[in-house]
Amino acid sequence: MPNHRPAGPSEHQKALTNPRSDRVKAVRSLSRRSVRSRAGEFLAEGPQAVREAVNHRPDLVRDVYVTAEAAARHPAIVQNALDRDLWVHEVSPEVLAAMVDSQAPQGIAAVCSTLDVTLEAAMAALVGPTDLRPAALVCVLTNVRDPGNAGTVIRGADAAGADLVIVSDSSVDVYNPKVVRSTAGSLWHLPICVGEPVPAILAALRSAGVRLLAADGSGASLLPDVDLTSSHAWVMGNEAWGLPADLREACDEVVQVPIYGRAESLNLAMAATVCLYASAQALHAAH
Amino acid sequence: MPNHRPAGPSEHQKALTNPRSDRVKAVRSLSRRSVRSRAGEFLAEGPQAVREAVNHRPDLVRDVYVTAEAAARHPAIVQNALDRDLWVHEVSPEVLAAMVDSQAPQGIAAVCSTLDVTLEAAMAALVGPTDLRPAALVCVLTNVRDPGNAGTVIRGADAAGADLVIVSDSSVDVYNPKVVRSTAGSLWHLPICVGEPVPAILAALRSAGVRLLAADGSGASLLPDVDLTSSHAWVMGNEAWGLPADLREACDEVVQVPIYGRAESLNLAMAATVCLYASAQALHAAH
Repeated sequence: MPNHRPAGPSEHQKALTNPRSDRVKAVRSLSRRSVRSRAGEFLAEGPQAVREAVNHRPDLVRDVYVTAEAAARHPAIVQNALDRDLWVHEVSPEVLAAMVDSQAPQGIAAVCSTLDVTLEAAMAALVGPTDLRPAALVCVLTNVRDPGNAGTVIRGADAAGADLVIVSDSSVDVYNPKVVRSTAGSLWHLPICVGEPVPAILAALRSAGVRLLAADGSGASLLPDVDLTSSHAWVMGNEAWGLPADLREACDEVVQVPIYGRAESLNLAMAATVCLYASAQALHAAH
Repeated sequence: MPNHRPAGPSEHQKALTNPRSDRVKAVRSLSRRSVRSRAGEFLAEGPQAVREAVNHRPDLVRDVYVTAEAAARHPAIVQNALDRDLWVHEVSPEVLAAMVDSQAPQGIAAVCSTLDVTLEAAMAALVGPTDLRPAALVCVLTNVRDPGNAGTVIRGADAAGADLVIVSDSSVDVYNPKVVRSTAGSLWHLPICVGEPVPAILAALRSAGVRLLAADGSGASLLPDVDLTSSHAWVMGNEAWGLPADLREACDEVVQVPIYGRAESLNLAMAATVCLYASAQALHAAH
């Protein structure tokens, strides 16, 4: 099977056309968590994810697979990948479809190395007050099980300019294709820490001087009343049952997003976004 | 087929057990937009939707269908329905599953009359300054196609205390089972106006003295800089392509939610929730 690093699109090798080849099976097997975990690799699907991976973390991109049709539709992505000396393989639509988890494959995918950082490294890198803003903003997901929710919260944390996202060991795998897709590229934009138990996460943040704010409908404090101008972390719970009592008690403050109408609650991604944006606006206004 | 209005749970009639009966087919056909539109009815599925329908708009509930198991799990919903003299029918799990659109039926559903109000009535009911707050808050969905997004925005508008939601004729049907489900009961909490073209909606709001704020990533104004203390409507566009130029120009101001990090954008439901919550907080703080 040809597998050369082309110097330019004109030197593309013969397209991969056998959907039953070992290579295709190996890529497809990345849809399983155990395989991802063993290989330290995962699959980025679609132009948005591949573009962000190539632009922001080319060091982590192992192989880009693209159909002729998608290469014509997204020339900048292919050119960027080639400019960065990445492996770009032309594949038939059947091969691409056999590689990806998506029901509607978009013609391009990339095998990437996992990008999470250790809790220790994340804490060391956490910025204190800077020229740009007065404090650090962290988002912690505990027991979040729905891939779409987890990805949407990571996207919201990125949009709000969070410095770090921590996803606990009891949550969905951030390299799950549905999570990757719903981050809309944000997975490659900010440091992400995974696989640690919640108590270790809270202890590390506390040692780093980060105030712990539990977001929960039972909160005694209302979001607009909370001081958000110093370093803090939003600790989010499960989409159905929220945060357990012991975890709420381990935080410095339990905060609820006020409900002004008759809705019972906001969903997890909406509540997280409202909290993170309140933080972003307070941090920027305070500076 | 027994179909009596029972005075209490003890007088439940014989359960409906034939999933191929005409009644079951009639209920199931409400999953089609054309049937809903002709019948002026739709199906509320699951305990949350049925509870909110029975509590808030019992006048619009035609029939409640419940399995013995769900009736035991949700006695308050059944009792409330009986207290309000509603028809409650016990059905076998097979009948319930044949009635509903959901892959995971939750044992209870209700056929409800549609609840939308006319644009004229909505404008007449729109409150001006009240004891509770200084101005009206409206949410307008134009060209929103994804049922989950539409439902989530309606839920967010309810949580933010909006006075009215308007869904244009070019958007998804609010009585689509997926929309109903993702509103989490909010469909019954606030007036909803459907089926009007966007120009008529904007003209009506303008005549009512409501300022039109287009939410769009191209906006010249940043959300934190916009005065949100007078009556205003958030005009939201399609999830993929946003608002077309002519629609943006028809609004008084085009507002963007600032992106503090490296994300390209927020998704529609998140952007709408951040805008609506900024409004809610400004309106409450101003009062």
